[in-house]
Amino acid sequence: MNNKAIGVFDSGIGGLTVYKALKEKMPGEKVIYLGDTARLPYGSKSAETIIKFSEENAFFLVDRNVKMIVVACNSSSSYAVPTLQNRLDIPVLGVIEPGADAAVRMSKRSIGVIGTTATISSQSYEKAIRERKSDIEIVSKDCPLFVPLVEEGWINHPVTRLVIEEYLLPLKEKGIDSLVLGCTHYPVIKDPIAKVLGDEIRLIDSAETVTEKVHSILKSLGWFSKSQKVQEDEFYVTDFPERFKRVGEIFLQKKINSVQVALF
Amino acid sequence: MNNKAIGVFDSGIGGLTVYKALKEKMPGEKVIYLGDTARLPYGSKSAETIIKFSEENAFFLVDRNVKMIVVACNSSSSYAVPTLQNRLDIPVLGVIEPGADAAVRMSKRSIGVIGTTATISSQSYEKAIRERKSDIEIVSKDCPLFVPLVEEGWINHPVTRLVIEEYLLPLKEKGIDSLVLGCTHYPVIKDPIAKVLGDEIRLIDSAETVTEKVHSILKSLGWFSKSQKVQEDEFYVTDFPERFKRVGEIFLQKKINSVQVALF
Repeated sequence: MNNKAIGVFDSGIGGLTVYKALKEKMPGEKVIYLGDTARLPYGSKSAETIIKFSEENAFFLVDRNVKMIVVACNSSSSYAVPTLQNRLDIPVLGVIEPGADAAVRMSKRSIGVIGTTATISSQSYEKAIRERKSDIEIVSKDCPLFVPLVEEGWINHPVTRLVIEEYLLPLKEKGIDSLVLGCTHYPVIKDPIAKVLGDEIRLIDSAETVTEKVHSILKSLGWFSKSQKVQEDEFYVTDFPERFKRVGEIFLQKKINSVQVALF
Repeated sequence: MNNKAIGVFDSGIGGLTVYKALKEKMPGEKVIYLGDTARLPYGSKSAETIIKFSEENAFFLVDRNVKMIVVACNSSSSYAVPTLQNRLDIPVLGVIEPGADAAVRMSKRSIGVIGTTATISSQSYEKAIRERKSDIEIVSKDCPLFVPLVEEGWINHPVTRLVIEEYLLPLKEKGIDSLVLGCTHYPVIKDPIAKVLGDEIRLIDSAETVTEKVHSILKSLGWFSKSQKVQEDEFYVTDFPERFKRVGEIFLQKKINSVQVALF
């Protein structure tokens, strides 16, 4: 298993936050990344559709012989992880459980959770948090405009500030002391969110916490890469490889040699 | 041909504006409507992907034995209509040509065109307008936040007003005297758009103009329905039939008996 790659999939480009955290922690591991850009976003779709798309993504990665799968997309993680774990014989890890771990660790009083409509409707974070700490207060809110605002590039824009205020001030008023950024797009607007919420509310980005979990799984299985040479990662998308390459390079602050189109 | 249905497809629910206009003008015609809600939106996707999805939608309708296909989605109309016309032996009509007809008829000086990124990148409206009137000025702008704002239901909302101002005031300053609403979602925010632009700029919604064109095609072919009884229309979606039924009934102000899931 050691020299096989780690498979990561997301509905689009946002999962590169997870890719980046993985590579920083474990530079010797090869990663195969798949972004389902033809069918994004997942966050406004039904459970059945998200599960179906997630299975197709996972099978694509399994065909590329990965040793484990990280589901970077929160909407997929919310609905599809148990199905994938049942159907595949390699470890499958979503971002919800690691996010819940971090939230419980960082929060004393009340946890805010934001995400796509699909993620929030699933109540996946609530369930995972309650399993860890049954008596903590949780306030959830779907924020469907955040993804299109990030994609439009309106990061420090008055409109984005207004939308953040409308979505998040009610959570602040309810006294949350941490906020789970339950969508891979949201870390991009971490600064304007922090400005609206103030310093007392801690923002939790699951990219780092999921990386810790991947590290501990590989460690416990003895599956770390033993390759001495740096392996070339592979990037696949279902649409717009040029755009993924261009935006991905800004995202990662490094060159992406090639992005291939995944057909399935 | 007479008693066959008219097929209409859209990436989602917005094409019901076209459905509604068709039924108002030709209540005797049966319509089979398909919304590709599992893969929406189309407006941020590539030409290749939009063509592929559009072909699958069209074949689904052809299998249901329709006499013609109306492509209600502007992004599909921009890229896929020539391919569909080549591949199918029934008439295929998009919304671009009828929209261009109306724009040229209503505009004296300068035409504004707004739409999704895909529609605007295709320059489909520009080409169609120039074919009709080569010397008219055209100013285009993609407005990617309008669809998510409409889907969020923020119609008369300060954020929507700010976004409209940011996208459209530069077009007003350039002196447009008409504006093509080149996306089926945009008529929903026609009022706030009119408030920002003022009375002098005429707003063009292609639902009505495409209906005129369907009427004239059926008339010239002698293909009008001869059925005396009211035929039950059929609605299909690729995801979320319950949501389509609920929102569609508000949209149409009438009951939709059933919405089925299209599998392909």
